[in-house]
Amino acid sequence: MAVNGRDIKTDFLKVYSRLKADLLTDSAFDFTDDSRAWISRMLDYNVPGGKLNRGISVVDSYKLLREGNELDENEFFLCCALGWCIEWLQAYFLVLDDIMDNSLTRRGHPCWFRLPKVGLIAANDGILLRNHIPRILKRYFREKPYYVDLLDLFNEVEFQTASGQMLDLITTHEGEQDLAKYKLPVYRRIVQYKTAYYSFYLPVACALLMSGENLDNFVSVKNILVEMGTYFQVQDDYLDCFGEPAVIGKIGTDIEDFKCSWLVVQAIERANEDQMQLLHENYGKTDPACVAAVKALYKDLDLQTVFSKYESESYEKLISNIEAEPNKAVQEVLKSFLLKIYKRQK
Amino acid sequence: MAVNGRDIKTDFLKVYSRLKADLLTDSAFDFTDDSRAWISRMLDYNVPGGKLNRGISVVDSYKLLREGNELDENEFFLCCALGWCIEWLQAYFLVLDDIMDNSLTRRGHPCWFRLPKVGLIAANDGILLRNHIPRILKRYFREKPYYVDLLDLFNEVEFQTASGQMLDLITTHEGEQDLAKYKLPVYRRIVQYKTAYYSFYLPVACALLMSGENLDNFVSVKNILVEMGTYFQVQDDYLDCFGEPAVIGKIGTDIEDFKCSWLVVQAIERANEDQMQLLHENYGKTDPACVAAVKALYKDLDLQTVFSKYESESYEKLISNIEAEPNKAVQEVLKSFLLKIYKRQK
Repeated sequence: MAVNGRDIKTDFLKVYSRLKADLLTDSAFDFTDDSRAWISRMLDYNVPGGKLNRGISVVDSYKLLREGNELDENEFFLCCALGWCIEWLQAYFLVLDDIMDNSLTRRGHPCWFRLPKVGLIAANDGILLRNHIPRILKRYFREKPYYVDLLDLFNEVEFQTASGQMLDLITTHEGEQDLAKYKLPVYRRIVQYKTAYYSFYLPVACALLMSGENLDNFVSVKNILVEMGTYFQVQDDYLDCFGEPAVIGKIGTDIEDFKCSWLVVQAIERANEDQMQLLHENYGKTDPACVAAVKALYKDLDLQTVFSKYESESYEKLISNIEAEPNKAVQEVLKSFLLKIYKRQK
Repeated sequence: MAVNGRDIKTDFLKVYSRLKADLLTDSAFDFTDDSRAWISRMLDYNVPGGKLNRGISVVDSYKLLREGNELDENEFFLCCALGWCIEWLQAYFLVLDDIMDNSLTRRGHPCWFRLPKVGLIAANDGILLRNHIPRILKRYFREKPYYVDLLDLFNEVEFQTASGQMLDLITTHEGEQDLAKYKLPVYRRIVQYKTAYYSFYLPVACALLMSGENLDNFVSVKNILVEMGTYFQVQDDYLDCFGEPAVIGKIGTDIEDFKCSWLVVQAIERANEDQMQLLHENYGKTDPACVAAVKALYKDLDLQTVFSKYESESYEKLISNIEAEPNKAVQEVLKSFLLKIYKRQK
């Protein structure tokens, strides 16, 4: 195994195969052939097909925390296992979110619940994905001194993500009655809980625990990562409308879907009465003319410049907060995250 | 608080109010007024409205393990908190099962997802219910020596329940193609995982952990409780068809719903070719004439006698296994469970 080689994604995927094989022979359940085949197919369909950035960043972060010391094979495996737990968590959220949003496709394929043989069984599959995480943790980390902290961490982050999803669902519901409810503090709160904790804080927190650290001593690191996650989501919202579909790999539908996007929040903050009227009449409609009207308004309000300004201000603030961190290795971890996302086009 | 008084249900419900108030002020999430109101309503609708047998049996079991020593107020509260965790777990499964089964009512009210303002947001509410369990455990048990065992226990039992639900969903799917797939070993496996672990083993395991015991030493107790849970589900299936609706509080629909019920499994085992044909033509139909034809077949095959025989044999076997347990207090716990369910009419 090319433990510290270039092709980390290949090695990372090998660990997936091992974890999957473990789960299919878990002695806590007495599998039938059919149920084993079901889980195998469900895992392959939902877990490994994403960009894997979150998972791999556990390995990257741990390496930086080790300040260049090579990882042995077992350490590498454990990092990957934690990374995969985050990918499993993501798969669980996506399977269930797609049901709730009544989505059609995910990662270029039909959503899992859209497959004819699956349907609403997908809800239970989502739950199984979630249940696989403690199975993986127990098998490989039960004897580690940080085992209980890992369980607490995954539990807390999952709670925060589900709470953020609730806030998003309630806010969208209210926004459909009154668009003016889409305000910046609500937007920030949704993003912080629904996305930032599990996408940015969780991978670093896993690497810190593996390094023997106490997470209570890293509150400022958490705050920086949550801020970075917020910046990441703002980019996502911006690219959904202004990105190049060929580059980002999908055609954005936030306007059609009545999403509480950073762009509409900014538009509402700046719109005069007529422009607000235009938004009321066109936001959340699938008619391409309506979508075009909203995009035209975004341009009239010069949201592209607003975004550029937000982007550079966020970057400056993040860099200065990162440099205030006492621990150099931690600084490197945070900078590596920031460099991966700053001014990204996809 | 009447810690050891008669009205345990009243005291148990008081603990619900306290746990709910804690969750609504959980510092891990920054609630808006609307999201706090949503959770409050969702909890009241879904958590405390059942029979509460599972939850209260944690308290009963712990008292028996203490061999008559009175519980102090804090011990009583902790027992109740664990009991409520089981009720929360149950609520989580029911909210999601009702979505998957497309059910209409639950405990005499519309299912949560049927409420116009809720819909598929219910899937996320189910997840939140599940996430509340580790929040409760962390708040009150973090410093206990058995904290990590509690987390492992709840994780394992949830995994087993979700796996049993998967098996049930797959089996029903296959049974709809070929009724002959409903066989006793599959039936037993579904019941063991989907119902017995969380309804029978989990309350006793919680009480054992609180008493400082190591669950590895109680494998035979687990097996007895799983067997009791199976017996309980067979009764449930029997009463669904032959029970008095006024007594059991609902009108059974297992035949209409194509359930893999103990009765249909027994019928398939005994049916001749003509009777199998009758089942094929009538099982899983809502037409009352079809339902009546199936019930008539059950009577022709004398399933009432088959059930009585199963019931007394199970009882004898359970009693003899219980009496083989070395620990007298544990025997009392197991007997109290058995007496609560033996020959029950509802």
